[in-house]
Amino acid sequence: MNLVVQKFGGTSVANAERLFNVAQIVTDTYQKGNNVVVVVSAQGDTTDDLITKAGEINPNPSKREMDVLLSTGEQISMSLLAMAIERMGFPVISLTGWQAGFLTDSTHGSSRIRRINKERIDNELSKRNIVIVAGFQGINRYDDITTLGRGGSDTSAVALAAVLHADLCQIYTDVDGVYTADPRLVKNAKKLDEITYDEMLELASLGAQVLHNRSVEMAKKYNVNLEVLSSLTRNPGTKIKEVVKVEKMLIRGVARDNDVARISILGVPDQPGIAFKIFSQLAAKKVNVDIILQSIGRDNTKDISFTVSRSHKQLALDLMNEINENIGGKGIICDDNISKVSIVGAGMATNPGVASKMFEALTEANVNIQMISTSEIKISVLIELADSEKAVNAIHAAFEV
Amino acid sequence: MNLVVQKFGGTSVANAERLFNVAQIVTDTYQKGNNVVVVVSAQGDTTDDLITKAGEINPNPSKREMDVLLSTGEQISMSLLAMAIERMGFPVISLTGWQAGFLTDSTHGSSRIRRINKERIDNELSKRNIVIVAGFQGINRYDDITTLGRGGSDTSAVALAAVLHADLCQIYTDVDGVYTADPRLVKNAKKLDEITYDEMLELASLGAQVLHNRSVEMAKKYNVNLEVLSSLTRNPGTKIKEVVKVEKMLIRGVARDNDVARISILGVPDQPGIAFKIFSQLAAKKVNVDIILQSIGRDNTKDISFTVSRSHKQLALDLMNEINENIGGKGIICDDNISKVSIVGAGMATNPGVASKMFEALTEANVNIQMISTSEIKISVLIELADSEKAVNAIHAAFEV
Repeated sequence: MNLVVQKFGGTSVANAERLFNVAQIVTDTYQKGNNVVVVVSAQGDTTDDLITKAGEINPNPSKREMDVLLSTGEQISMSLLAMAIERMGFPVISLTGWQAGFLTDSTHGSSRIRRINKERIDNELSKRNIVIVAGFQGINRYDDITTLGRGGSDTSAVALAAVLHADLCQIYTDVDGVYTADPRLVKNAKKLDEITYDEMLELASLGAQVLHNRSVEMAKKYNVNLEVLSSLTRNPGTKIKEVVKVEKMLIRGVARDNDVARISILGVPDQPGIAFKIFSQLAAKKVNVDIILQSIGRDNTKDISFTVSRSHKQLALDLMNEINENIGGKGIICDDNISKVSIVGAGMATNPGVASKMFEALTEANVNIQMISTSEIKISVLIELADSEKAVNAIHAAFEV
Repeated sequence: MNLVVQKFGGTSVANAERLFNVAQIVTDTYQKGNNVVVVVSAQGDTTDDLITKAGEINPNPSKREMDVLLSTGEQISMSLLAMAIERMGFPVISLTGWQAGFLTDSTHGSSRIRRINKERIDNELSKRNIVIVAGFQGINRYDDITTLGRGGSDTSAVALAAVLHADLCQIYTDVDGVYTADPRLVKNAKKLDEITYDEMLELASLGAQVLHNRSVEMAKKYNVNLEVLSSLTRNPGTKIKEVVKVEKMLIRGVARDNDVARISILGVPDQPGIAFKIFSQLAAKKVNVDIILQSIGRDNTKDISFTVSRSHKQLALDLMNEINENIGGKGIICDDNISKVSIVGAGMATNPGVASKMFEALTEANVNIQMISTSEIKISVLIELADSEKAVNAIHAAFEV
């Protein structure tokens, strides 16, 4: 008997009709002889509605009480899904985070899972019950309710799959898999059958918002077989695993991220420790820096450029202005009219010429490259925002993905 | 330092404004140097909304899952109240039923409290935190969520007051106390300062829906000082305790209950065991019988009459028709165009003439009495429905309560 963990997001359980659709998927899986553990998010806008409700009472509530409030969202959807499955005549039981044994640290609002006591779930599975678990939540060592923050329910599902040694962890969402590019942007983007954890991690961090990185990282660490698929189409999705079939494809996908701002600090004295000073201070303020580029020095100065997400732009600018004054720099330039376009593929490490092929495609499309960053399985370029759609299509066509 | 348990019902916490009103009452009590434990119900119509939501999914959901769903109602209101109190600058923590240590039996939907592990609450109180507890809920020995059913939050509050040896248990509601008669019915009905547990029990069972009997019974058993009062007026309410001050008042109140149906089975053979047969079968079907009257036999037969609540009428009628055939009775009469009017007062046991005074008042008001039932502290009469308002006023005036 196989064990399958299935996770359904908020849109998949938004109303009675959707809940019965999910119940159908779950019971089909169960009837094939599998044991099934289901992880659910809160219905549709429930979490946002609860946040609004709290805001009317207290604009700055404690995170502990916020977790108490928000955790009701999954508790409602899990019990309603259980009722739907009951109505279809299958044995089912719903469990909150603490009932399912999720123990976390005490960082309310963005807790980390420390341990899962799986006795209760094992016990229910041994009775051949379908087990529904509230995603996104747990308790800390003081028995206080915690929530896992962004991507929390995906993480709950992968963690459960790891602890229960599930054969498969299916993440049902409103897209039917991972594509070679955003289908809204590139007409002949293709759905990938398979992708490696690392490729998925790079794609996710590049703005392909199918899975939160946290859950992919955990899946990689515990070697959980992941599948991303749609709860509406019932088509096969994209499998995410350690090693994928050898394919002709050089690259796995083209991704675009417009949430980028580039900041440059000019005329920095060419002394040791300057870069450390800049980036340690950004790190201290929890500003995530992505691409870093340092120009070759001239007149004993250099220019240092880096990118941050737009929400961190102002914080980074304030810091840089301060540093600029302290070290006698020549000023700060900021540009957020830019886009980051990347190609990702585990195959590129062993295939020379991938980068030049990308740059050639961009040149032919008359797109100017501002900055370049590369990793083992990724090449990113920074270009003007207006060029991004053109660039993604040109690259996608060049690689015939 | 005194410990006060305060319970607020659904209307008292229905919206942001009401929540801050409650927060004011709670923090006023706290600031006077008391330790405060607050028990809350779900906001306004939340419970009904959740029941509707469940009904759209499954007209007959399991009681276990229903409890999972409904228990979110108090969890929402308790966290919102905590946020309101936080905003007013007071230390506060909210606890669900299981966090507060409420252990119940496994009768989902109408559980009984078995035990309260008070360590967590004691611990929070010792830090001078205001403690907010979700009423109506607990967990059973398997860690499944249970709810206490009707009157559950009142019961939670009284049970907590008993376990914590609270100095006072205040039940805040939308009326400001217990009256000598329904103020909507009797113009000069007076609010009682004090009433005994037994009187309160009789009044509650007679349709004065201020407190659920279950909570009053528990208060009597553990000698909890209860007070019923309004969360809106801030006036002193009615104290409910073992012994009240001696007053001139012969009776404590006049109550009316229109939820009554009278069923008579006629021409029953005058043999031993007949009454047992009738009432054991009613009991087996969980039909609560109130007043019972057996006519003096004639021609070796007798008539047996009893009253039930209207919701049990059909079930009782079906049973009686069956019994009537089996024993060769002369038929069944049913009347639900009736009302039960009662007077309650611990003083009446030692004051002869109370009954006759009541009957005199009814005679003068030209009200016909159909059945009479008496206890140590109560006299009830069954009269025609149309006469009930007149009867209550006549009796209230006669006793000058």
